[in-house]
Amino acid sequence: MQAQPAFCRGDHTLSVPMTLFKQNRSRLCEALRSSGTIQKGSIVVLQGGEAVMRYCSDHEPLFRQESYFHWTFGVEEPDFYGAVEVDSGKSILFCPKLPESYAVWMGRLKTTDDFMAQYGVDEVHYVPDIKSVLKGKEPSALLVLHGLNTDSGSYSKEAAFDGIGEFSVDNKILHPVISECRVFKSELELEVLRYSNRLSSEAHKEVMRSIRPGMFEYQIESIFRHYCHYYGGARNLAYTCVCGSGINGATLHYGHAGEPNKKQMVDGEMCLFDMGSEYCCYTSDITCSYPVNGKFSPEQKIIYETVYKSSRAVMEAVKPGVNWVDMHLLADRVHLTELKRHGLLQGDVEDMMKVRLGAVFMPHGLGHFIGVDTHDVGGYPEGTERVNEPGLRSLRTARILQRSMVLTIEPGVYFIRCLLDAALQNPDQAKFLVQEQIDKFRNFGGVRIEDDIVVTETGMELMTCVPRTVEEIEAIMAEGRARGDQPLPQLKKH
Amino acid sequence: MQAQPAFCRGDHTLSVPMTLFKQNRSRLCEALRSSGTIQKGSIVVLQGGEAVMRYCSDHEPLFRQESYFHWTFGVEEPDFYGAVEVDSGKSILFCPKLPESYAVWMGRLKTTDDFMAQYGVDEVHYVPDIKSVLKGKEPSALLVLHGLNTDSGSYSKEAAFDGIGEFSVDNKILHPVISECRVFKSELELEVLRYSNRLSSEAHKEVMRSIRPGMFEYQIESIFRHYCHYYGGARNLAYTCVCGSGINGATLHYGHAGEPNKKQMVDGEMCLFDMGSEYCCYTSDITCSYPVNGKFSPEQKIIYETVYKSSRAVMEAVKPGVNWVDMHLLADRVHLTELKRHGLLQGDVEDMMKVRLGAVFMPHGLGHFIGVDTHDVGGYPEGTERVNEPGLRSLRTARILQRSMVLTIEPGVYFIRCLLDAALQNPDQAKFLVQEQIDKFRNFGGVRIEDDIVVTETGMELMTCVPRTVEEIEAIMAEGRARGDQPLPQLKKH
Repeated sequence: MQAQPAFCRGDHTLSVPMTLFKQNRSRLCEALRSSGTIQKGSIVVLQGGEAVMRYCSDHEPLFRQESYFHWTFGVEEPDFYGAVEVDSGKSILFCPKLPESYAVWMGRLKTTDDFMAQYGVDEVHYVPDIKSVLKGKEPSALLVLHGLNTDSGSYSKEAAFDGIGEFSVDNKILHPVISECRVFKSELELEVLRYSNRLSSEAHKEVMRSIRPGMFEYQIESIFRHYCHYYGGARNLAYTCVCGSGINGATLHYGHAGEPNKKQMVDGEMCLFDMGSEYCCYTSDITCSYPVNGKFSPEQKIIYETVYKSSRAVMEAVKPGVNWVDMHLLADRVHLTELKRHGLLQGDVEDMMKVRLGAVFMPHGLGHFIGVDTHDVGGYPEGTERVNEPGLRSLRTARILQRSMVLTIEPGVYFIRCLLDAALQNPDQAKFLVQEQIDKFRNFGGVRIEDDIVVTETGMELMTCVPRTVEEIEAIMAEGRARGDQPLPQLKKH
Repeated sequence: MQAQPAFCRGDHTLSVPMTLFKQNRSRLCEALRSSGTIQKGSIVVLQGGEAVMRYCSDHEPLFRQESYFHWTFGVEEPDFYGAVEVDSGKSILFCPKLPESYAVWMGRLKTTDDFMAQYGVDEVHYVPDIKSVLKGKEPSALLVLHGLNTDSGSYSKEAAFDGIGEFSVDNKILHPVISECRVFKSELELEVLRYSNRLSSEAHKEVMRSIRPGMFEYQIESIFRHYCHYYGGARNLAYTCVCGSGINGATLHYGHAGEPNKKQMVDGEMCLFDMGSEYCCYTSDITCSYPVNGKFSPEQKIIYETVYKSSRAVMEAVKPGVNWVDMHLLADRVHLTELKRHGLLQGDVEDMMKVRLGAVFMPHGLGHFIGVDTHDVGGYPEGTERVNEPGLRSLRTARILQRSMVLTIEPGVYFIRCLLDAALQNPDQAKFLVQEQIDKFRNFGGVRIEDDIVVTETGMELMTCVPRTVEEIEAIMAEGRARGDQPLPQLKKH
């Protein structure tokens, strides 16, 4: 037993104290109390994620906690409920009551005392007792979670249990307040995000050392995942790895089941690897782009350095008070300026900006909040409107930056055929395109440089630490080549 | 484009021809036609698995196809439907109609022709056209899937689409017939199962070479997963890795979210690693047990060789016509005989059998069908009854073995505290237990030896190929030790 309740995967990994979640609960209670919308005696009730089986089979995919519940309690197991008394901040967990016989399959059944010690909460009861326990507290209202996730378009699942109808239930107050709390990361949360980032950064570096022409994209995914789990105790990745080489670098969500990173990587191609681990459900989200063979060609350097410039221009500009939409536009402007300088575009950059030419090359948003979800909540609270223009409408937030917000900065330049063809047929945009030059890049794919940052009082802190300049990248790739290759055994034959 | 449509992950992996699924469809149609229960003009309609997001977020876990749909069509993407004309065997896929704009995120949108070439079916249409396409075929009935999975207790999801009510729909005929088809593996299916097994066997061997006292259980999971993906193109594991060391070896489903393989492994402990990959959704399921430090102690050798004997006794006995329940009892009998020989039990083995003493040490079933699901379907068709006795009631099938059935043989001996304590308090069982001897094993954990086999005309074929005797295991572990250690970098510090 650890003296201080904590999430840990061994001395070589980060120990995450359960006080992180206690702090989150305190912040939530304070925000609710100062919202002026709640009565004394209110209790927050959240329902954790449930264990599910795959289709009709008994295959159980590894459980991952629902993010609001994780943020509030840090519970690793399925089928819990949790409650927080808003006046006192007192925390109560409800754990499932398993039949004794489950011990054979699941291990010694943990008692309520075990969970109290593990999660550092004030009370633990069994789920079947939730109604009577809450009744005993005579709450004025139960605050449950109901609200829209502006990235998915889905609504959060309201807590529900037999007899909840006997309480006064409010499903309006909680969602905006807890979402807003999640936007601002505490120092303890930042420590976990930094760790995730350090781990994923090291894993990306290992990939840079290991990659060789002739390897398959999925082998990159495998190296990354192994590194994060083996060395860092990160069992889950934050999202499905995007491992595009060559033209696949221009497919923004490459790597899904229909495009399962199965291409062989070829000498001369660029690659774009968007991969991040999560630790204690705190995510990281990092993209690196470089030539498969370890040496940038002049064309590859042009596009790479264009994106590198926009990335660093945004980092220079980020600080509290800055509008995130302006940062996106800044990245666009740098891209257009550089592409013009290198002869791919012609005409006046400000005129290009007016017709949103930047979105032809960067159709996605510049970056998003990151936390317990990779695309973290709170991007569009009431009063913040989505800008309905190409590129900008893909932004997952359009907020004014504030201290302790954590975001990705992920500019990219891609040569996406359907977008280039549409631009060439749009007279307002076509006049800026030097088709002959652009055609040379039709099979290029794309470059994205994605880092995770936290907004500080005066600027930002960069949490990602990977080689970023052309020189740094070529150096680490040469280092990997010097250590030799890993042979592929032939398993096919008997 | 491949000349022959196939699932493949590079020349070093297995190429699975789409004719595998065509054969499956032919077998299904033949079985339906000869069932005598269907009208001419019937069409099988299946709905594939759907893309889902995690809770209210936009996180999309990697899609894995629903197993009946995979068996019939081999489709890798979500949101498909499929149909098979029973009279002719003609196959039709319905793919989702995605908005053009998705190309930016998903890659070039595949056309119906692309899917026809990829999956080798006769027709491909878009999902929104399913009603009109099927109408045009004037089916006498649509056969849809509805039936109980006897492992999960869940029912399969019936195909549903707008307007299905305008057809004559039968949900009774299909489920038992297709489930029975899945029980018997074709030669093409066996090739994939052999490949999965070869790959997982090699990965287990790599773990044997790599393990050292002081490592964490999850690092074993990571090595295994990496090996299967990197070398074999197996992106998914067949199930969550069970990596128990010491007493955790006695927790049968160890490794789940509440027991996430996080213990550090200690010199002197046994370990039990139940891990298998899947390739093209064909699974493998293999367990190896050995000492963390590479050398069996006399006590470890006793338990290990007890299980090894029962494993090989069952393999000797397996052939068509044998009752699987008898195989379970055979394993029990060997365990009890050996445990008696080594002084842990006393009295007459046949008397022990009468009180089901075997189930104290092996509470799970001897083995199960394996195929597109790790716990494959068809274990209890109508007329086959579950035997409601300890141990036997956990069997996922109680069938008479037939040629081309694929099963695990996975006897185990565990020292599970709650079961030992219950047995010691049961006078019918306690008299056989030599408590003083058994108490020495209270922290031992357990041993399981799990192999995958196919029943042949005269016996069985062993698909798993890992070191199994004490000598073989010690030799490969010594080989690994000779190649040195992998150091753990310290990521914790800045």
